[in-house]
This record gives sequence, C-alpha cells and structure tokens, in this order.
Amino acid sequence: MTEDLGTLICDLARSFYDLGWVTGTGGGICIRDGDRVVMAPSGVQKERMRPDQMFTIALDGSVLSRPADPALRPSECASLFLKAINIRGAGAVIHNHSIHAVMATMLFTNEFTISHLEMIKGIEGMAYGDRLVVPIIENTERECDLADSLEEAILQYPAANAVLVRRHGVYVWGRDWVSAKTQAECYDYLFRAAVDMRRLGIPTVVEGGTGNASLPIGQSRARSGR
Amino acid sequence: MTEDLGTLICDLARSFYDLGWVTGTGGGICIRDGDRVVMAPSGVQKERMRPDQMFTIALDGSVLSRPADPALRPSECASLFLKAINIRGAGAVIHNHSIHAVMATMLFTNEFTISHLEMIKGIEGMAYGDRLVVPIIENTERECDLADSLEEAILQYPAANAVLVRRHGVYVWGRDWVSAKTQAECYDYLFRAAVDMRRLGIPTVVEGGTGNASLPIGQSRARSGR
Amino acid sequence: MTEDLGTLICDLARSFYDLGWVTGTGGGICIRDGDRVVMAPSGVQKERMRPDQMFTIALDGSVLSRPADPALRPSECASLFLKAINIRGAGAVIHNHSIHAVMATMLFTNEFTISHLEMIKGIEGMAYGDRLVVPIIENTERECDLADSLEEAILQYPAANAVLVRRHGVYVWGRDWVSAKTQAECYDYLFRAAVDMRRLGIPTVVEGGTGNASLPIGQSRARSGR
Amino acid sequence: MTEDLGTLICDLARSFYDLGWVTGTGGGICIRDGDRVVMAPSGVQKERMRPDQMFTIALDGSVLSRPADPALRPSECASLFLKAINIRGAGAVIHNHSIHAVMATMLFTNEFTISHLEMIKGIEGMAYGDRLVVPIIENTERECDLADSLEEAILQYPAANAVLVRRHGVYVWGRDWVSAKTQAECYDYLFRAAVDMRRLGIPTVVEGGTGNASLPIGQSRARSGR
Repeated sequence: MTEDLGTLICDLARSFYDLGWVTGTGGGICIRDGDRVVMAPSGVQKERMRPDQMFTIALDGSVLSRPADPALRPSECASLFLKAINIRGAGAVIHNHSIHAVMATMLFTNEFTISHLEMIKGIEGMAYGDRLVVPIIENTERECDLADSLEEAILQYPAANAVLVRRHGVYVWGRDWVSAKTQAECYDYLFRAAVDMRRLGIPTVVEGGTGNASLPIGQSRARSGR
Repeated sequence: MTEDLGTLICDLARSFYDLGWVTGTGGGICIRDGDRVVMAPSGVQKERMRPDQMFTIALDGSVLSRPADPALRPSECASLFLKAINIRGAGAVIHNHSIHAVMATMLFTNEFTISHLEMIKGIEGMAYGDRLVVPIIENTERECDLADSLEEAILQYPAANAVLVRRHGVYVWGRDWVSAKTQAECYDYLFRAAVDMRRLGIPTVVEGGTGNASLPIGQSRARSGR
Repeated sequence: MTEDLGTLICDLARSFYDLGWVTGTGGGICIRDGDRVVMAPSGVQKERMRPDQMFTIALDGSVLSRPADPALRPSECASLFLKAINIRGAGAVIHNHSIHAVMATMLFTNEFTISHLEMIKGIEGMAYGDRLVVPIIENTERECDLADSLEEAILQYPAANAVLVRRHGVYVWGRDWVSAKTQAECYDYLFRAAVDMRRLGIPTVVEGGTGNASLPIGQSRARSGR
Repeated sequence: MTEDLGTLICDLARSFYDLGWVTGTGGGICIRDGDRVVMAPSGVQKERMRPDQMFTIALDGSVLSRPADPALRPSECASLFLKAINIRGAGAVIHNHSIHAVMATMLFTNEFTISHLEMIKGIEGMAYGDRLVVPIIENTERECDLADSLEEAILQYPAANAVLVRRHGVYVWGRDWVSAKTQAECYDYLFRAAVDMRRLGIPTVVEGGTGNASLPIGQSRARSGR
C-alpha cells in the first residue's frame, strides 16, 4: 500500500507541476496511511520523482523507512505536515508555492477573506454565502521555523483547513488525498479570483451577506457584486 | 453506446480540467442518447473519472442505471441539464466554473453583451456583427435551486444557448456534444476577451453596429474599435 | 506524401489547440506539396481531426481530392490561404484566433508596429532593431470576403509575411511549414508582449532606433526602453 | 553518455516549450559532460529535436562531433554558454526568451532586484531575506556579440548565476542540469512575480530587510509587504 501511495504522490506531483504549484523543487505533498505518513524527499524536482524515492515517517516524525539513495533527505515540510495531521487528523497535506497564493498574501493583511463565490462550496464546511477566512502567517528564513506559528494559526482558526504563508505559499489539508487536492484547487481558484477582483476594484467580501444564507441572494448582493 | 458515451465524457472532462473549467470537482457534462441522458456523478474529481462511474437518467430525471459504487450520487446539475434538454432539445449540456465566466458576471449587470468579435460566429445563429446577449442569473446556495431561474432565463432569451450564473459559472448547450463543446469554447474566449477589453477601457459592444450586417464593416467601426 | 502531410496537419492542429489558437473549431493550416495544397476541413474540432479528413486542392482552388465523409467542406480560409501561396510563394499558411492577436488589433490602428525585441529576429528578413510592421485589415461578415483586402495588404506590404484581421485573428505564412509555424509563434509572442507593454505604459516602438542597426544598441535605447 | 545527454536535452526542451521559454526556435540548453559540452543546434524547433541532432563541442568551442544533417549549425549561444562554463564552472546553461524575463528587463534599469519571496531560496547561496540581484545587459543585433558584456557581467557580479538580456531573455546556469533547471524555474517565477507586483504597486524589495536575516521576520516587513 505504501508503494501505491508513492506512485500516487509522484502522479499528483507531476500534475501540480503542470499547475505551476511546485516549480523549482518547491512544495510538497504527504499522504497518511494509518499511523504512517508517506512523504516526498526534500529539494528534488517534483515532476520527476519516482516511487522508490519516498520516505515513510511515524506520526511523531521519526523515519520508518527511507529510500536507498543516501543523498535524499525527508521533506523540510515534515514538521509542518505533522501539525495538520496530529492536530486536525488530516489524511493528506499539500504545500504549494502557487503565484496566486503568494500574490494574495501581499494584498491581504492577517487574513485572506472572500465570500459569495461558488468555489467556496468546495471548501469543507463552507456554503456559498459564507465568509471564508484563511489565516496568513509570516514567513521565516527556515521552513521548519514555521511550525510554531502554523500550529498557532491552526488552533486559532478551528474552521480553517488552510494556512497561507506570507510571500511563500499555502498549506492545505483534508481528511484524505482527494479532499486535500480538491480543496487545494478551490483555494487556488479563490486566490486567483481575489487578486483579479482587487485589480478590477471589486471587493472580495460582499457586505451584508449572511453567514449561512439559505435563501437565493437577491438584488442587494447583485448590486454590490460588480 | 452508453458505454462509449461514458468514455467520451471522461475524455472531455480531462480536457476541460486542463482548461481550468472543472477544477475542485466542480462543473459537469451530460450527453443525450435518444431518450436517455448519460451524466457524470456529483462531487468527484472530473479529470479522474472512469466510464463505469456514469449515471443514465431518463428525460424526467429518474435514474435508469447507476454505477456499482454506492457512494456515487448523480450530478447536482441534473435538474438544470434537463431544463436545456427538455425546453430546447439540447443533445449535450456543459457546466463550467471558468474564471473568465465568473469574472465576466462581476463586470456585467443582468446581461453579458458583446459584438464584433470573430468568435461570435462560433455561437449558433450568430453573425460577426450581431450583439450577442447571455442572460446572467443570480446564484443560490444550492445548485438545484437554480432550476427555476434558469428555466425563466431560457424562456426569456429564446436565442440564447448559454446562461451565466453570477459568481458561479456558465451553462452552455448544443444540439450534440460537438456543438455544445464548440460553443463552450467560443463563450469562454468571449468572456475572457470581454474582461480584457474592460481592463483596457475598450467597450464590448460596438455602437452603431447593425444586427446582421452583411457588408464589410468600415471605418466607423474601426474607429470605435480601439 | 499527401497522407503524411495530413498526419502532420493533425499533429500541428492539436498543438495549436493547446496554445489557444484554434478553439471553437476556428483557425486552420494548409501545407503546399508541389502544385497541390493539403488543407483541413471547415468547422471541425481542430484538435480532434484525422488525416483522412483532409482536402487536397490545386493552386487555382479546385478540389483535387476530398475526404469520404460527405458532410465535410473545405476550409473557409481556402481562398485566403491561396493568396499567400500564389502571390508570395508560401509553402504553408497558418490562420489563428489567438486572443493576443485579437487584443493587439484593438490597440493599434492600421498597422501593428514593434521594435527592439529579440523575437523580432524570428521573423524572416528582420533584425532586432528593425521596426516590424504588420498590416491590419478590417473584418468582414464572411471569411471569404476578406480575400480582396488580404490581397491588397499583401501587395501593399511586400516585406510582411503576416496580416492581422481586426477583432478576428491573424494569417501568417512561410516558405514551408516549419517557417510558417516558427513565425506564427514569434508573432504571437510579439502580440502578447505589445499588449502587456501597452498595459504598463511602455511604447512598443523605440524612438530613434535605426532600421537595420548593426551596432550594439546603447544607453539611449536602454533609457527609452523602460 | 553523450547520447543519453542528447535524449535528456530533447526531453527538457519539450518541457521548456510547454513553459513558453523556447517558442519560435528560440532559446537553448547545453549540458557539460567532463571536458565536452552537448548542445542543441541553432534555429530548429526546440520541442521537436531528436538526440541525433546534437553537437558536442570542446571547452574552447571547437566542434568535436556534429550531426549527420549538413544543414544543422551549432547553437548561436555557444560562445555565451562557454562563458558560464569556463568562468564559473557551470555544468549546464539554459537560455530562454520567457516573456516574464523580457517584461522584467523593461521595468528595471541595470539590475533586477527582489527580496523576501520564498522562491529566492531556490537560487543557490540565497536566503529568503536576501536581496537577489540579476544584472541586465543590453541586447545586440547578433547573439554572439553579447559575449563580451555577458563576461563582464559575470565578473562584476560574482554571486549571480543568471544574467538578463534587455528585451531578449535570460541566461541561467548551475553546477549540473538539475541545478540549472531548478534555478531557471525559480528565476522565471520571480520575474513573473516582480512584474505582477509592479502592476499592483508593491515594491519588489522590502526596505530595511537584512541581507541574511536568520530570525523570523516580523511586523515591520509584514507592513511594508502589502
């Protein structure tokens, strides 16, 4: 099964490369398999990985198995991935450097907020009219130094399943790899839409929208929405 | 034949994913086969579907056959797809969340309008100089709640074969899958062009253009066109 | 050989589709083989064509061979393609609806002009410091009605191997298919760059640049160039 | 081994074509193999090269082996590639015409500068808070005429492993092909981000940032960063 997950991770990474999420060896993905986590190595070309290059680590971060190539090191995101897994019970975590995420962190202060876009429904627990909030933490020189502020953000924003890192990228997780990937795609779309909306002078949050409106949204939204 | 349509739907969905139309499990497509409609399931990764995951429904929406996997549900767009099929005799319907469509709904009020672009000729019944009109309906919390306003728009705009949904996406149909796909591509191009034109301060409708001008369009258009 | 050209045309058309040049069945390509021209049919999905769907026409436009499928018609661009072939001796002609070309036609009046970009060297006969000029003709309701103004532009601009059509796209040709494709790629890059430059307030032509400067270009250009 | 490098170069060139780096036969790549350098020919379609079309040259530029096709000439970039190889000991050099690089050269004067973006860590020797500097040299009519100013820039900027050429593109090198490719991807991302930042009025260098800050960067950066 771990072998299959390795193949899956390589396949997903190639697809993420085509989306511009993991160029320059950046970004990563891990998938949980019971009490083990399969993870790509650090600093390798993500679109050219092979299944035999994967690490398996325990939930406490100890390495259970490693690839034969001694030059490979486990992902620098390991401690960050484990935060989402251990605090939130995530089954998979994706980290990417999408330019849409990075541009969004330069246009918002401490929180990325958006409402009234259909893609918000792709985020777990969110409805169309909800105000989606993604915390933004400050970047650090070393990736592992993000662990504390990432944990803080996870605890402070119990409804969030993503954390933006200023001028760096985003961490997204889900109960399994399909959920994590689906949400990573929805978030990326929303980051891109928000940047475009700012460029066009359109507010990203519709004022007066109710949190979980179940009625069709009428004229007042339509008017503010353009 | 239904099996072949399943393969075709999977193939088209992969292509739509590459175009950014159906990320995050969103969007969908259905193809009519006589008095049956083959349709993708709801909430699955559109670029990774398999033919054995398709539903077949009757024109009244009843499920004729379903995939073996009990977790799969028919597309949430089913009732919407059937509006275009039953009212307009569509042979295929495409729903996508293209960011170009969504941005366009935030720059236009109740109707998207554009004229004098060659791609307008790709829309059935339209000539280059025609003023193309696509109605925009307001989004709802649940996709199925769009059915009434979609039907209303279809009836109010008998020449339209697409309906935009504010901050959500677009529904496009045609007499068969080739026609639906061709028009979905033309509309997407036109939505993108319109957003770019607005950014550059270029009006999307050329004033004084006649509806079905058959003469070459001369200087007056040329002047207003830049 | 004609069969091989059919395979090549299908292959190129798929690649053009990925570049966004021939969506919605638009655009086309023809390749000359001695005194015959192999050409795609009209109104079909360009990325899904098969070699057995090609037409072969003579240099006077008469059809020499046609596909078995009676529904297929020769490309509407045929008379336009033949202008470049007969007047200029082109070995291949490409027509595309690239949004970069179309946006460029809305930002320039009668001529698209650009200078001092390396990609200009990809255009036959042009040097880096040259002022590249592409004539823009007005669009017509029917594609075939462009023939006269296209011919006029070809005769009026003997150095040009491309003609832009306002709000429509571009025709590009070369002595063979490699040359035509190479130049179509260079033009597309230049149209895109010009639109971006206009957005950023950068002039597309460097003033004071000499037509065929063979000396390294110094400070004066550098200063005007940003 | 040279044969394998030929296959690798063809594979990389196809990938660069998909990124828009080498359209119109432009751009190139060479990989060093001991005291020999494998290099693509000049003026061919980069995405359609075959391994048997490669040249092998010595470190002094003399041709050691050439393809059978007499029409092929060695890359015009050869003398430029050899500058990075001989002065810096590069194991691979990539030259591309990415529009992001070209636009960046029109928005910066003599140096491209950026700081505080995670992708800067992908550049060898650079930390997140460092101020990345890429020299910009003026373009020349003939590619080989760039050799002197490229050498000058390489000597003047000993920390740089890339040189931008105004209105032309970029040269990037690394100790091996993986390093060169990784850095070319990081630079391209940074050029694109910088152009987007300028459009949005965001400074590309964070004032007050320390060169090699090892502490997490706090509020002061965060404030200036949006």
